[in-house]
Amino acid sequence: MPNRQFVLASRPTGMVEESHFRMIESPIPSPAEGEFLVRSLYLSVDPYMRGRMNAGRSYATPVEIGGLMGGGGVGEVIESKHPGYRPGDVAVLQTGWQQYAISNGKGARKVDPSAAPITTALGVLGMTGLTAYFGLLEICGVKPGETVVVSGAAGAVGSVVGQIAKLKGCRTVGIAGGAKKTEFIQKECGFDAALDYKASTDYTADLAVLCPDRVDVYFDNTGGPISDAVFAHLNFFSRVAICGQIAHYNDAHPPMGPRLLRYVLVNRTKVQGFIVSDHQDRHAAALVQLTQWFKEGKIRCREDVVEGFENMPRALMGLFTGENIGKRVVKVG
Amino acid sequence: MPNRQFVLASRPTGMVEESHFRMIESPIPSPAEGEFLVRSLYLSVDPYMRGRMNAGRSYATPVEIGGLMGGGGVGEVIESKHPGYRPGDVAVLQTGWQQYAISNGKGARKVDPSAAPITTALGVLGMTGLTAYFGLLEICGVKPGETVVVSGAAGAVGSVVGQIAKLKGCRTVGIAGGAKKTEFIQKECGFDAALDYKASTDYTADLAVLCPDRVDVYFDNTGGPISDAVFAHLNFFSRVAICGQIAHYNDAHPPMGPRLLRYVLVNRTKVQGFIVSDHQDRHAAALVQLTQWFKEGKIRCREDVVEGFENMPRALMGLFTGENIGKRVVKVG
Repeated sequence: MPNRQFVLASRPTGMVEESHFRMIESPIPSPAEGEFLVRSLYLSVDPYMRGRMNAGRSYATPVEIGGLMGGGGVGEVIESKHPGYRPGDVAVLQTGWQQYAISNGKGARKVDPSAAPITTALGVLGMTGLTAYFGLLEICGVKPGETVVVSGAAGAVGSVVGQIAKLKGCRTVGIAGGAKKTEFIQKECGFDAALDYKASTDYTADLAVLCPDRVDVYFDNTGGPISDAVFAHLNFFSRVAICGQIAHYNDAHPPMGPRLLRYVLVNRTKVQGFIVSDHQDRHAAALVQLTQWFKEGKIRCREDVVEGFENMPRALMGLFTGENIGKRVVKVG
Repeated sequence: MPNRQFVLASRPTGMVEESHFRMIESPIPSPAEGEFLVRSLYLSVDPYMRGRMNAGRSYATPVEIGGLMGGGGVGEVIESKHPGYRPGDVAVLQTGWQQYAISNGKGARKVDPSAAPITTALGVLGMTGLTAYFGLLEICGVKPGETVVVSGAAGAVGSVVGQIAKLKGCRTVGIAGGAKKTEFIQKECGFDAALDYKASTDYTADLAVLCPDRVDVYFDNTGGPISDAVFAHLNFFSRVAICGQIAHYNDAHPPMGPRLLRYVLVNRTKVQGFIVSDHQDRHAAALVQLTQWFKEGKIRCREDVVEGFENMPRALMGLFTGENIGKRVVKVG
């Protein structure tokens, strides 16, 4: 049986399409001393992957043409020459887009299938949950009573941001596209209010109503005209975490928009970009807290499971058209 | 003899003009118990004053139509019913745009004419020097060896930012308009390199040459296309202090430009707006340090003195066309 893999066929200049990927087959690798072999069970698709398909300077090296698409996954250890992993163990690691992956244990951790569904290791109890946690608590430093606005609020990160903000005593306003999503974030994630940007004809006016005390914290996953409107409602000494700019990942040309720095000046706002791996030394402690909240039912998660390894490209593409509610994963085997 | 004052005649919608001000005469006021009367010697003109002429929300209350234009000044105490001030004392305080001002001492401090020229109390040893100090050291947290870029580098704030950055062991690149200014910042302020934006046909390409290790700290006084180019060269974990956006203070419509948040995300940049009065509790300590540097000749200052109270409006207007090198003050008496 071969190892099916997706490699980058060509670099997109605008919207990513299936033709930018190519599925290849290679032999299943054997672990060397100190390594283990994993069979992928679920693979993650995340918006940041679009950035890695570009050649430009970024925080991570771009995927080479013909190179394996990178990404996280959970899988079952099927062979091991590593002292910490045994066959039958479930692990979360950087698998890449493939059915079988070798690891030396670096960046990997074991997952306890009896504690929570193993898919959560890719979501609320994994990279996206940690992103929500550090972005809201470290970058924004939320305080009780503050108004927190979240764009991409029905997504994997945004839906967790809203719930942590509620746990911290904030008023939460989520921005999402469509009635299903705004219902989800209010009923399942406990957002106090929601703005359906697909139904709104004036984001700025609608936000004025939803945020009568202005916006103390803005957790931005999207950028674009939604962010423009939120910036116009920032409060004095507000904080903005730039987690994602999904509205622009598929832009063919550098996007233009209203200049926002005047809002930053007048309000003495702090705007800060971040990525979760910058906080890696504290991931373990944060996962303890997130797991506790999850077990206590204080944080819920919705997962959007796409069936079939062959659907990896389309699963990723769907993130940019807003198909998913909650964390999207691909079920491989 | 009357007290001549400038009041706001009307709100500008674009570039400020003389017609937006009106000079009036009123009786010289008498100090009540606990107050003192000052005769203005030098009045400050600063870009922030343009913002106060607008009705919009900002960190300070707008000037009312018919209201006295606000601002700082240094003057001589000529009558006092305040225990801390005696006739003959020189003080710096919020005089407003007038020849005589009453103060209860709040926000005022005495100036020692034997220590430094009294005009410095409006500049390097006053509001603009403190702005440079807190913006660079607190907001940006510069470290030795970092590349610091300053826009408006020949201005009252920017010229001091560059000198403090050099004292802290940074490499300094100043952006200013015209050969006189770029010569000033390099020869008098010790900037390592300068970009003359009036002579440049490609800010981005020129900055790439001037900042081969990218930009760790950007102290922004201007905004506009200069800032766009600097953002494109930001380094990982860079810091940007938004001190001013003088390029836009006279815009009639909200300005458009390239979206900058993607640079903030990729570099995990911190962008923060600030105003000097937010740090008021530490002004005294900072002034001790600035005064020491000044006395030791480690920080030099250039002042641009406009003669005559009647020229206050034109002195302010000139800030927006880049007339001044260093701190502009108006000599009143």
